[in-house]
Amino acid sequence: MSETTATTAADLTDPAYAASLDEADPLAHLRDRFAIPDPDLVYLDGNSLGRLPLATRARLGQVIDEEWGRGLVRSWDQWIGLPQRVGDLMAEHLLGARPGEVALSDCTTVNLYKLAVAALDAGPEGGAIITDDDNFPTDRYVLQGIAEREGRELRLLHTDPDEGLDMDRLAAALEAGAVALVSLSHVAYRSGALADMVAVTELVHRAGALVLWDLCHAVGAVPIDLMAAGADLAVGCTYKYVDGGPGAPAFLYVRRELQAELRQPIWGWFGQEDQFEMGPRYRPRAGIERFLTGTPPVPLLAAVEEGVALLAEAGIEALRAKGVALTEYLIGLYEAWLRPLGFSLASPRDPARRGSHVTLHHPLAGLIVQGMAARGVVADLRAPERVRLGPSPLSTSFGEVHRGMTVIRQVAEDLRKERRG
Amino acid sequence: MSETTATTAADLTDPAYAASLDEADPLAHLRDRFAIPDPDLVYLDGNSLGRLPLATRARLGQVIDEEWGRGLVRSWDQWIGLPQRVGDLMAEHLLGARPGEVALSDCTTVNLYKLAVAALDAGPEGGAIITDDDNFPTDRYVLQGIAEREGRELRLLHTDPDEGLDMDRLAAALEAGAVALVSLSHVAYRSGALADMVAVTELVHRAGALVLWDLCHAVGAVPIDLMAAGADLAVGCTYKYVDGGPGAPAFLYVRRELQAELRQPIWGWFGQEDQFEMGPRYRPRAGIERFLTGTPPVPLLAAVEEGVALLAEAGIEALRAKGVALTEYLIGLYEAWLRPLGFSLASPRDPARRGSHVTLHHPLAGLIVQGMAARGVVADLRAPERVRLGPSPLSTSFGEVHRGMTVIRQVAEDLRKERRG
Repeated sequence: MSETTATTAADLTDPAYAASLDEADPLAHLRDRFAIPDPDLVYLDGNSLGRLPLATRARLGQVIDEEWGRGLVRSWDQWIGLPQRVGDLMAEHLLGARPGEVALSDCTTVNLYKLAVAALDAGPEGGAIITDDDNFPTDRYVLQGIAEREGRELRLLHTDPDEGLDMDRLAAALEAGAVALVSLSHVAYRSGALADMVAVTELVHRAGALVLWDLCHAVGAVPIDLMAAGADLAVGCTYKYVDGGPGAPAFLYVRRELQAELRQPIWGWFGQEDQFEMGPRYRPRAGIERFLTGTPPVPLLAAVEEGVALLAEAGIEALRAKGVALTEYLIGLYEAWLRPLGFSLASPRDPARRGSHVTLHHPLAGLIVQGMAARGVVADLRAPERVRLGPSPLSTSFGEVHRGMTVIRQVAEDLRKERRG
Repeated sequence: MSETTATTAADLTDPAYAASLDEADPLAHLRDRFAIPDPDLVYLDGNSLGRLPLATRARLGQVIDEEWGRGLVRSWDQWIGLPQRVGDLMAEHLLGARPGEVALSDCTTVNLYKLAVAALDAGPEGGAIITDDDNFPTDRYVLQGIAEREGRELRLLHTDPDEGLDMDRLAAALEAGAVALVSLSHVAYRSGALADMVAVTELVHRAGALVLWDLCHAVGAVPIDLMAAGADLAVGCTYKYVDGGPGAPAFLYVRRELQAELRQPIWGWFGQEDQFEMGPRYRPRAGIERFLTGTPPVPLLAAVEEGVALLAEAGIEALRAKGVALTEYLIGLYEAWLRPLGFSLASPRDPARRGSHVTLHHPLAGLIVQGMAARGVVADLRAPERVRLGPSPLSTSFGEVHRGMTVIRQVAEDLRKERRG
């Protein structure tokens, strides 16, 4: 034990303490449901690409060999309903939405575009768009592109990159002239800051605008209740906590009452009533299906279904509790080991105000992430000076967090010695 | 032998003749490179969903187990260049395009949208859009949606659904006022009629418009030379003759000289210069990459790469020769067996004027396709009265065509007896 740890949180830093947390973890057994070919690897990037569930591997084999290889085009009978079926499963278990409000389609970028254009077309003439300057790049770029082409004002809300959205700034931005659309992330991609969906939605609605949530870093990690919040629109990806695999299709949500009045700009045959009639005029389907475009990536839809089923089995409340426990433990180790080494917290300290990932500042973040990788600890560099650590409530153990933090401490200590030497 | 066949083309209808064609087929051995779990199945729907190549099954196992399961997020180092790498492979072997002119992205519908909007924005103020009334539904719907929102005229060219594009009608449509964009299919989805890419492109350019080709039913079946034709824009899918699997990502082509001046409307992080810098302003990448949007479906990109490699191994000229031979043989059997049973040809008779699929009219087409399916012959119903037959040059044998046509004859004869009985 180093002097630092002995004086601050001796029990927390003891590997036996991590073992006792794993012992008591009601979700611990779910780690065995993942392919973990390299048990020594510490994977703290589940919020970038989730691990491979064993059920997904089996399901993909079935889709490839049997449904595609044997069934061929005849399998479309079962494939055709997947976007809605998986959407309904997400709605029920992860999103607090009603049947027929969620579907899988395209990537997050394209869904953001479709829903943002639809919202602008339905909103007040010339109404502005609001987003925040710490929003995920693709969100900002999509909205910039639309604002530029449509001649709309884009109000960029300044947001603290460590602490998240400032409600007073949002209120002020909403008062600075007619607004059509506010688009924000529920969990910030860098800090993990969790926005108050109920309060933001209420504020936006009072200004007569629609709200479009990006749920990429939230879905599968924190409870979401779109219906209770009265949220209008949402999108998100499925390759982070949902474990759908690299480039798995995104989802979109449109509140039932809005579906008929929104005009989706990309009119494809999967959004068409009587798709196989191949008729002369586009007549959008009645429900969430009008927000579909072209042929979806079938095997990856099936993969998402398996990922959602696993999350549903765990239950989102239990996942949230584990996510809080994992990140609290991680922050405890940071306070004991890393703060004295020049790290500082780049996430809200209060677990109620953050999702399931934690970011640390360090001036040598690039070298630290490199050193971690060389010692089998995978995390994300958010250039230039942030290390992002994303344990997954489904597949990360407390022991894994302990080993990872031990390595970060070693790497930082080694760097310090090198620089001094 | 029935009387009909004995008097018209006895050798053609003899199974031994099919066997001799298979014997002489230089591509025959490639059938063994596909998963064919049910050797009795006659699959004449390769132009809807291609068969599963064995190499693709192995590659998907590698991508799922090793790259995703073991490599996890670290595999993005190798994944990140896939959209361009597979695009370049298609450009070289299938599309007659230069390196950096093709990339894989999104679905065909979304790519059509992106390129059509970009073309309109770059073209003459208020210029019209031309397409044809027999174009694939999603093409017509996308263009209708854009025309309606942008206040553009959509000129719908009347096209014979059996014979394809009429150049005089196209010329007349181009003269009826300023045109910004002409969007057509290279091979028509119903008749298989092959448009003259060189002549059409020249005509469109003379009118000062850009041309956007849909290559879905052409790629992998007929030689395409986008550069020689001076074609501006193209899109297409990869799940038909390219055998990329259900919902494999689409490709897009933008002529090199046009790339810098076109403004793609969906600004995503994969189109951004210095993607992982995550900077404040969207600055589109220099080349074809600016037409990318969000995270691509990695496993299916890998599947497309395997499909393209197999086509490249065969060579597009050999594939075209086999496609012509298969469809000529199929039409020969139609003339011998099916024409007397009330079928008529719904495709150009001249092989130089069609792609690799053939469509037949029959008033009872729905019942016929049903009866075929019950006897293990898979084809497409194009409602209400067309049977579409799409042998794949890579995986369909002449023997398979013979067995398929034998079954169609039996089904039609049985239906005739039932109706008379």
